Amino acid sequence: MTGFVNSDGGNSGRGARPVIVQKYGGSSLADAGLIHNAAKRICARKDDGTDVIAVVSAMGESTDELIALSQAVTGDSAPDPRELDTLLSTGELVSSTLMAMTLKARGYDAISLSGGQAGIRTDAVHGSARIADIKTDRLRRELDKGRIVIVAGFQGLADSGDITTLGRGASDTTAVALAVAMQADRCEIYTDVDGIYTTDPQLTDRARKLAEIGFLEMLEMAVLGAKMNPRSIELGYVYNMPIYVASSFSNEPGTLIHGGEHTMEVRKAVTGIAVDSNVGKITVRGVKDRPGIAAGLLQPLADAGISIDVILQNTSSDGTTDFTFTVAQVDVDRAAEIARNQTNVEFEEVVAGSDLAKVSIVGTGMENAPGYAARMFSTLAGVGVNIDMITTSEIRITTIIARDQVQNAVRALHDAFELEKTE
Amino acid sequence: MTGFVNSDGGNSGRGARPVIVQKYGGSSLADAGLIHNAAKRICARKDDGTDVIAVVSAMGESTDELIALSQAVTGDSAPDPRELDTLLSTGELVSSTLMAMTLKARGYDAISLSGGQAGIRTDAVHGSARIADIKTDRLRRELDKGRIVIVAGFQGLADSGDITTLGRGASDTTAVALAVAMQADRCEIYTDVDGIYTTDPQLTDRARKLAEIGFLEMLEMAVLGAKMNPRSIELGYVYNMPIYVASSFSNEPGTLIHGGEHTMEVRKAVTGIAVDSNVGKITVRGVKDRPGIAAGLLQPLADAGISIDVILQNTSSDGTTDFTFTVAQVDVDRAAEIARNQTNVEFEEVVAGSDLAKVSIVGTGMENAPGYAARMFSTLAGVGVNIDMITTSEIRITTIIARDQVQNAVRALHDAFELEKTE
Repeated sequence: MTGFVNSDGGNSGRGARPVIVQKYGGSSLADAGLIHNAAKRICARKDDGTDVIAVVSAMGESTDELIALSQAVTGDSAPDPRELDTLLSTGELVSSTLMAMTLKARGYDAISLSGGQAGIRTDAVHGSARIADIKTDRLRRELDKGRIVIVAGFQGLADSGDITTLGRGASDTTAVALAVAMQADRCEIYTDVDGIYTTDPQLTDRARKLAEIGFLEMLEMAVLGAKMNPRSIELGYVYNMPIYVASSFSNEPGTLIHGGEHTMEVRKAVTGIAVDSNVGKITVRGVKDRPGIAAGLLQPLADAGISIDVILQNTSSDGTTDFTFTVAQVDVDRAAEIARNQTNVEFEEVVAGSDLAKVSIVGTGMENAPGYAARMFSTLAGVGVNIDMITTSEIRITTIIARDQVQNAVRALHDAFELEKTE
Repeated sequence: MTGFVNSDGGNSGRGARPVIVQKYGGSSLADAGLIHNAAKRICARKDDGTDVIAVVSAMGESTDELIALSQAVTGDSAPDPRELDTLLSTGELVSSTLMAMTLKARGYDAISLSGGQAGIRTDAVHGSARIADIKTDRLRRELDKGRIVIVAGFQGLADSGDITTLGRGASDTTAVALAVAMQADRCEIYTDVDGIYTTDPQLTDRARKLAEIGFLEMLEMAVLGAKMNPRSIELGYVYNMPIYVASSFSNEPGTLIHGGEHTMEVRKAVTGIAVDSNVGKITVRGVKDRPGIAAGLLQPLADAGISIDVILQNTSSDGTTDFTFTVAQVDVDRAAEIARNQTNVEFEEVVAGSDLAKVSIVGTGMENAPGYAARMFSTLAGVGVNIDMITTSEIRITTIIARDQVQNAVRALHDAFELEKTE
């Protein structure tokens, strides 16, 4: 991520107009009416005297449709990554040009730029490229002409001249990166959720929208309903770029993700409850404990493209240990099969578990305040939820429980930590 | 068109492998099965030891779908031309990347290039850009790696870095221009018709597919069923690049369009009958005959974006003349209104005529052989077809007749000139 700020000398010569980077998600651009809806919001900001750069995702489900097309021609073999990137990049070209025409039809001067035209240079890792540098001269030139600039999200250009994409959901990353490079006042993400909640509102009606949340807490919450790409949060954190998340369908206030310490002391220890209901678990029992067992077990899974989430290995007794990790529910059978067939590590047996969920309490205050883990575990015990696994980070306590206990657990925890009350 | 040949020093260093440029139309790429079908044909050519560049159009109706999207957001106002060009260019990016993945999935090394990546530089006239130059170094480099190169048709890059498009149907132009620039052996156009016929086979079952036709005759026939872009024929003519037109759905031999004089002498005077059944006519009566009346009448129509086809002005008597021109049927009312309201030229009245058709006999032999016009007119009279207007070029005699007489006229002319017989 380093190196892309001010690659062309920063803000000099732009004058004093504030810059805002907005981002509109695919569901906020799914048809002509919604595009006009988003255009109105962009125009209102421009009318304020603000320079606006708007990053757009592909319309509605169009990325999935393009992926389906590629699968239709390649069948069982994986599509060539370079070709797939150019293919997928067209989704954002469509939405960005439509948005620019819409703004022009509404009487505003506007121009669309592809990722490459917007100066976004990346490495050459197709499908998950990282931004290496943003050359902002074209963006500044267009803003100086009084134009609204629409940037196709999710894409960049490698040194080879090939189009790259930054990974699913990475239009958020494009937006935050542009905000950083342009020294914008803030980055605004407009989407189909209206902010960040204390937990998934579908699990408890006591869930409350947060007016603000810290970057690190948000990183831990990122699996939650906000659908934000963790890389974009990381980027906001590293460069201290405030990110405002709100609904494109209403004018309700959203949530500001920021790094401001002034709120740290008064904030509650627990900010929210993150939930992932799609968890499978693999336990490799009776592993001979010697250096390299974790790598030996996990490398074959990485080679097969299976993402590992939680990893747990307890201290060994009698020279053997049990090694447990979680994967997405959909990968659990394949992961178990690979673990059984690997020859790097001796073991007694591999046991797979399905239909699990991950429930975490998240909050930067917890690291300095004792007793949160105990309260979490006793709360769960009090409503009869059995805890299968526990793992913690400095600002998060995670439990793995049965999936059918998720709602029960979340409601109890939400009440126990009084998350319905505002700070 | 000049200037785009050998801009980087020509064929040197490429070795002696022959190069073929193929082009596949949208209906030949409308789904995954058809893409594989076209891919097989490309692979077969590659297996011959030929370097293959394949130019692709957008899949099926996707260009129309993109235009509909742009109209949905802009309503009554015309979409911004720069944005529309980038939008429409995505159709060919989709088909080119899908074709490259398909070839790779079939075990052939391939790469897709956008118009810009393929070195196609154009002027900045969005919507109908002209090719200024083709920088062939990237194409040559990819062929030298043993790759099949798939080029997105219809598009190029202006010096500004903006994407341009060359106009509807201009993937043919892309293909012929690349064939010229790469000094290819020939350009092959695969489409949903299986060649050039003596006339529209829907009008008479005696229509016969031509094995070959000259460039100039083909230019006159271009309105016929072959759906070829006249610019591509012009380009083939100017640079003497043979163009082979055949069906992508069969292995039937197609038609070779070429400039070879060796066949000129033995060819019949009349090669084919071109038909356009969508003709409206405007007659401006009693025009005061003075210099500038044609321009005075036609400029307001050009400003309104109405294309004029045939223009007829007879010599004047008593200082006034009648001025007649034809337009597409759909434009006839608008054109009459504009002609009535223009103030450049004095006139008595404007009369509009609809439901007309243009039937032409075409052949390079006619200019040196008398009697063809007479035979055409007497043939039409013999079957009761009234001729409304006549206009001629060196290799074409055109009549405007009632649309409901087209089939009658074409059958009679086809028989009269014995077009069912091979040369």
